[in-house]
Amino acid sequence: MRKFEEKTIRSEKIYDGKVVHLQVDDVTLPNGKTSKREIIKHPGAVAIIPITKDKKIIFVEQYRKPLEKSLVEIPAGKLEPGEKPEATAVRELEEETGYTTNELEFVASFYTSPGFADELMYIYVSNKLEELKEKIDGDEDEFVEILELTLEEAQQYVKENRIQDAKTNYAILYLQTLEMM
Amino acid sequence: MRKFEEKTIRSEKIYDGKVVHLQVDDVTLPNGKTSKREIIKHPGAVAIIPITKDKKIIFVEQYRKPLEKSLVEIPAGKLEPGEKPEATAVRELEEETGYTTNELEFVASFYTSPGFADELMYIYVSNKLEELKEKIDGDEDEFVEILELTLEEAQQYVKENRIQDAKTNYAILYLQTLEMM
Repeated sequence: MRKFEEKTIRSEKIYDGKVVHLQVDDVTLPNGKTSKREIIKHPGAVAIIPITKDKKIIFVEQYRKPLEKSLVEIPAGKLEPGEKPEATAVRELEEETGYTTNELEFVASFYTSPGFADELMYIYVSNKLEELKEKIDGDEDEFVEILELTLEEAQQYVKENRIQDAKTNYAILYLQTLEMM
Repeated sequence: MRKFEEKTIRSEKIYDGKVVHLQVDDVTLPNGKTSKREIIKHPGAVAIIPITKDKKIIFVEQYRKPLEKSLVEIPAGKLEPGEKPEATAVRELEEETGYTTNELEFVASFYTSPGFADELMYIYVSNKLEELKEKIDGDEDEFVEILELTLEEAQQYVKENRIQDAKTNYAILYLQTLEMM
């Protein structure tokens, strides 16, 4: 679908970072006028909803510098170049929770902020978890704490804004619509 | 919650745009090491789920330059400085659909990409819509087309990735959990 397409006249790279890349495009609008679009390029991300045998959901709490506070979220991480989303899901599960799985189910994919960023988020779910024998270290600049919550407890966290994150709020609604909980 | 707090050593402004602001912070991690955080500052956004008398959901299709394609989304827009989210919701409804309402219900708020951006998204729903007598013009660089879909049609759009957007996918799941549809 290319309805209302905006043609690029000129694209200026502003910043080439570790995670985000910023460019500003001059575009021609459908009415012939021109405008500027500020665009964040992002490698994409993958999240997993891990469900234990006793039907608890595994979350991680971590500090989010852009918000200057910590949030409770489902495990997630950036797609590495050439990595399949399923592989990212298992890697993040292993690094952040100490569990692994070989049974993943695709839940959804969506752009997190299509107005200014191209980040595509993939979400998977697994209720076939196995504990890892040895802990795997994740990113050296990531500090997370694990929480196992029932769906009801997670819904309470949403009310208290301790869970307040697109992928995690989506995951909780998704579980509400399922029979598995 | 300030668990695992990352203290700012230095903050460098990289870009000050119309929509996004980019800064790179040097931070001290909980283990005493340092790291860099690339942070997008965004004014926040508000979306509304408009439901017509015959239980159709009003969507807008628009070109999303970061993705180089158009998406079907619920009406949404940026918070203006000092504006209450409820006012943004009504303004965007009026500008994008030609309807208005004086009955809004809060659905949820969440950060869209807490790893790199502070954008907070508020979502409201209304099934008490009234047609505006006169059309209100919106942003001069916004071109949208209106679609009215049943919930089943919207779910089909999700399967086809014509709807693939955090707030809109969330809205559709939310409606699935309600009796009102």
